[in-house]
Amino acid sequence: MSDRDRGPRFRRDSRPGKDSRAGKTGDRKRSPGRGSARNGRDAGANSPAILYGWHTVTAALANPRRTIRKLLLTENAARRLVDENIDTRIAPEIVRPGAIDQRLGPDAVHQGLLAETDPLPSPDIDTLAQEGIVLVLDQITDPHNVGAIMRSAAAFAVKAIVTTARHSPEATGVLAKSASGALELVPLVLVQNLARALSELNDRGFMTVGLDSAGDENLAAIPLRQPLALVLGAEGKGLRQLTRETCSAVARLDMPGDIKSLNVSNAAVLALYIGASRLGLMR
Amino acid sequence: MSDRDRGPRFRRDSRPGKDSRAGKTGDRKRSPGRGSARNGRDAGANSPAILYGWHTVTAALANPRRTIRKLLLTENAARRLVDENIDTRIAPEIVRPGAIDQRLGPDAVHQGLLAETDPLPSPDIDTLAQEGIVLVLDQITDPHNVGAIMRSAAAFAVKAIVTTARHSPEATGVLAKSASGALELVPLVLVQNLARALSELNDRGFMTVGLDSAGDENLAAIPLRQPLALVLGAEGKGLRQLTRETCSAVARLDMPGDIKSLNVSNAAVLALYIGASRLGLMR
Repeated sequence: MSDRDRGPRFRRDSRPGKDSRAGKTGDRKRSPGRGSARNGRDAGANSPAILYGWHTVTAALANPRRTIRKLLLTENAARRLVDENIDTRIAPEIVRPGAIDQRLGPDAVHQGLLAETDPLPSPDIDTLAQEGIVLVLDQITDPHNVGAIMRSAAAFAVKAIVTTARHSPEATGVLAKSASGALELVPLVLVQNLARALSELNDRGFMTVGLDSAGDENLAAIPLRQPLALVLGAEGKGLRQLTRETCSAVARLDMPGDIKSLNVSNAAVLALYIGASRLGLMR
Repeated sequence: MSDRDRGPRFRRDSRPGKDSRAGKTGDRKRSPGRGSARNGRDAGANSPAILYGWHTVTAALANPRRTIRKLLLTENAARRLVDENIDTRIAPEIVRPGAIDQRLGPDAVHQGLLAETDPLPSPDIDTLAQEGIVLVLDQITDPHNVGAIMRSAAAFAVKAIVTTARHSPEATGVLAKSASGALELVPLVLVQNLARALSELNDRGFMTVGLDSAGDENLAAIPLRQPLALVLGAEGKGLRQLTRETCSAVARLDMPGDIKSLNVSNAAVLALYIGASRLGLMR
């Protein structure tokens, strides 16, 4: 098990006082439960998504579906946005860097930009196009890992990421920063029950492939077809039993060295590369 | 630029007071400078490497080249080591979990094991075998990313990781935990000057390929040969100019989506997969 994926820190039902690191890195304003967002709707009515950093905020500004509630900029950042002809859409509040530091904690690299926005709506699973690749995340809790996975998903033109509303980090703060703008590009489908979501994908014609180091076959060697859902579990815990049983195949990533498991975001990008290459999606 | 790779936090010459997050996650006992380890020798004479977590500590116990100075175990961890017939090599100190928490901070997932050890010696670059793949890291500062890269390196049977002694995180604490035992498997070659090290690799017959999203050619499409050195720069900053100029080729990773750059550890594992596949090293 890695440091990065290890517990309930970012569960929506997390206990108070267990969330100190989240607070340091941009989630401070987040309320512990996001209420009705759990059913994948009404997300805009809830607590804001906090976005910071150049790529993350400028990608949000460029996304017409993203409602910006408030925009804090340092003078330098405001000037850079003007220089690059980026429309801020709302009147920014010009602040000293320290004001953003204070909001996010000293470790957050905000580059002088912080936006309070509505969370993006979560599409329903039955709206997913029956083509390409989707990623399914089974209780991967670390926001850095989920953010890196979203970034790789955007790089590989993944159609959507399906994950549970509970036991997943919220699309804000550190996750948004690690995703580096990918939040605006890859729809996040929040579901109540992952096994049920996988059954729906199976019913809709998806090949659902769980990744597991004890899988029967090598992902690079089994026949793959579109639409493809690649299913990843948390490091250490792996796929939950019901998740595994609901997948149409369980495959491993064969590697020549002495360590047989990867950081989960590394496993994700490798699975995406193999999947996209085998399906002829690399253009 | 991502959160994960963004500054001088883990430089050996880091300013006091800028290292708070390191302190929280296991590096607390590390002295800011490792002195003579910078020349790649005498590492054992310096401050200890702090290893924690099941995989990291058991891998160290299994490595005869790793000198264990002190071993702190909870009763549960001690019992588990006995159950799995793992030799602790030195008499452990049995402690309450809180004692290890106190040492590492509340966020470190230590699973009841903490070892104080000698750092492993750094081999000289001229001892590297002229075969297979080595990874070269140009000022990648985030210990989670470097740890994940070491883990992937072990998974792909990489021969060594070459990095600068300065502007790199030390092989302890969070890096060791993220590496999940890989520190014991992949030699870490610490050099003073990366461009000089790359020249040495060129002279020794390595093909040195820098990875850069603005590279002229696609890594998957250029002719590769052994011995191969894959060179990665920090996110945001990328390869330094002299690093890039010293590489025999600079290549990009082509991907079909709208984001064209990955988290650095994700880029590393993809480059390793492509390199190992193309060189016939996947077994």
